[in-house]
Amino acid sequence: MKMFDNIAIAGLGLLGGSVALAARKNNLVSEIFGYTRTPETLEKAKNSGIVDRGFLCFSEMVKVADFLVLAAPISINIELAKSIAKIKPNILFTDVGSTKKSIADAVEKHFKRKHRFAGSHPMAGSEKRGIEQADGDLFKEKTVIITPVRNAEKNTVEKIDEFWRNTGASTVTMDADQHDEICSLTSHLPHLVAFLLVEMISKEIHSSEVFACIGSGFRDTTRIAASDQEIWTDIFISNKHNILKSIKNFRTSLENVEKMIKAKDTDALKKWIGEIKEIRQRI
Amino acid sequence: MKMFDNIAIAGLGLLGGSVALAARKNNLVSEIFGYTRTPETLEKAKNSGIVDRGFLCFSEMVKVADFLVLAAPISINIELAKSIAKIKPNILFTDVGSTKKSIADAVEKHFKRKHRFAGSHPMAGSEKRGIEQADGDLFKEKTVIITPVRNAEKNTVEKIDEFWRNTGASTVTMDADQHDEICSLTSHLPHLVAFLLVEMISKEIHSSEVFACIGSGFRDTTRIAASDQEIWTDIFISNKHNILKSIKNFRTSLENVEKMIKAKDTDALKKWIGEIKEIRQRI
Repeated sequence: MKMFDNIAIAGLGLLGGSVALAARKNNLVSEIFGYTRTPETLEKAKNSGIVDRGFLCFSEMVKVADFLVLAAPISINIELAKSIAKIKPNILFTDVGSTKKSIADAVEKHFKRKHRFAGSHPMAGSEKRGIEQADGDLFKEKTVIITPVRNAEKNTVEKIDEFWRNTGASTVTMDADQHDEICSLTSHLPHLVAFLLVEMISKEIHSSEVFACIGSGFRDTTRIAASDQEIWTDIFISNKHNILKSIKNFRTSLENVEKMIKAKDTDALKKWIGEIKEIRQRI
Repeated sequence: MKMFDNIAIAGLGLLGGSVALAARKNNLVSEIFGYTRTPETLEKAKNSGIVDRGFLCFSEMVKVADFLVLAAPISINIELAKSIAKIKPNILFTDVGSTKKSIADAVEKHFKRKHRFAGSHPMAGSEKRGIEQADGDLFKEKTVIITPVRNAEKNTVEKIDEFWRNTGASTVTMDADQHDEICSLTSHLPHLVAFLLVEMISKEIHSSEVFACIGSGFRDTTRIAASDQEIWTDIFISNKHNILKSIKNFRTSLENVEKMIKAKDTDALKKWIGEIKEIRQRI
């Protein structure tokens, strides 16, 4: 059943393109609009039939939009949200950024009185990027976290929740603060650490000996180190407070293991690894 | 073509069992002997046909062995190597431990004049363990690193090299010191970091919100955090010197990123991530 006349998507990368394909595939809209700053991407999106109508001007798209999804890097989504407050403050919209507090703050600040926004974070990220990777099944059997924002009109969260469930996702509602705190540990710190692990071998990457010593452990642990620099710079900056706290805790634990190794404390190491192994096996 | 009358394997876990199955599958030996301290494992190995003859006494197996593979945790392999020096100092043998310097030192020290030992490190590790996971194709298309040891009889490395190539692996020869230094970066530090990432969420593991925020990034990055505590305690201790050096370098880089985030230095972050992404894409 169609939920909206149209869906308008700002940012046509992996996530934006996948939202378009999922909306089409599940028959949720009559028309799909797409906005991007890059004419080539817009051409690709139109030629491949991912969007029906393309826009190089955001405000033009907003004016005719029914349901709007912000799928650009976080700092751009925030700028776009500010301009929505001026162009069409009563539009239903969400974003798909990986941090939720900074955009929630921007909406609270720039929308007078009421708005129809709630944040979304589809747990369907990937180190891949670009509209070529878009997949209408990307959200199927994945979790989408929805973060309500103060001063939202009635039914805002419900409508956005319904949209995601119609793409095949299950949804969880969470406070933006709590989301950002948890994700700094489950996603942002792991990315940061994966980047560091690759940096550690970067000087010796041309050595055949180093290549010989790279196994599936290194490959899996650092898969996400091939992630995009625009997206991840925005995530690290927009969730600065929590990430710095997570780094601090990580460093304390690192120092603790370092002490165990220095002291050759096999009992403590076995206990530490054994407990972690058990937890990891439950995930 | 059969290379040996028999292969004798000490330690019947994932690696030991897989060596047995690969030797059988590729028709490299007439008979397979297995030693383990655990009667139940020995029964399993015999009943499933992985070994033809089981031993609960190591020296008894060594006496009748033709080619010997040490596949127990490193600290136990070292003890077994010492006893080989007394029981049958002219036997051809190797080990499959993940660090190579400590066993090389033990062989150099305990074998008078000559020996027929070279170390092996199959880059086919896994967080899985136990003979139930053994796989005759485990080494196929994988790299096995062979580490020669001073005072070895002529042809020692060649024989061991030939054995691994006959299991379907490709081989690389490397100095034990160099191996341990590189693997502290490509394997040991990634494991340590994966353990730490799981530790970071261990207190909140029962929270449904934390579970909702766990995506494929966290799963992949921490897959190896389900690794065995006996094996990994031995690795961390036996490669203490290199791992402590790697931790130190890692911490310096971590502090560097921390500064970039604190200063909201988007240009530096983008450059850093962009360079790492490019390196990771080449791996």
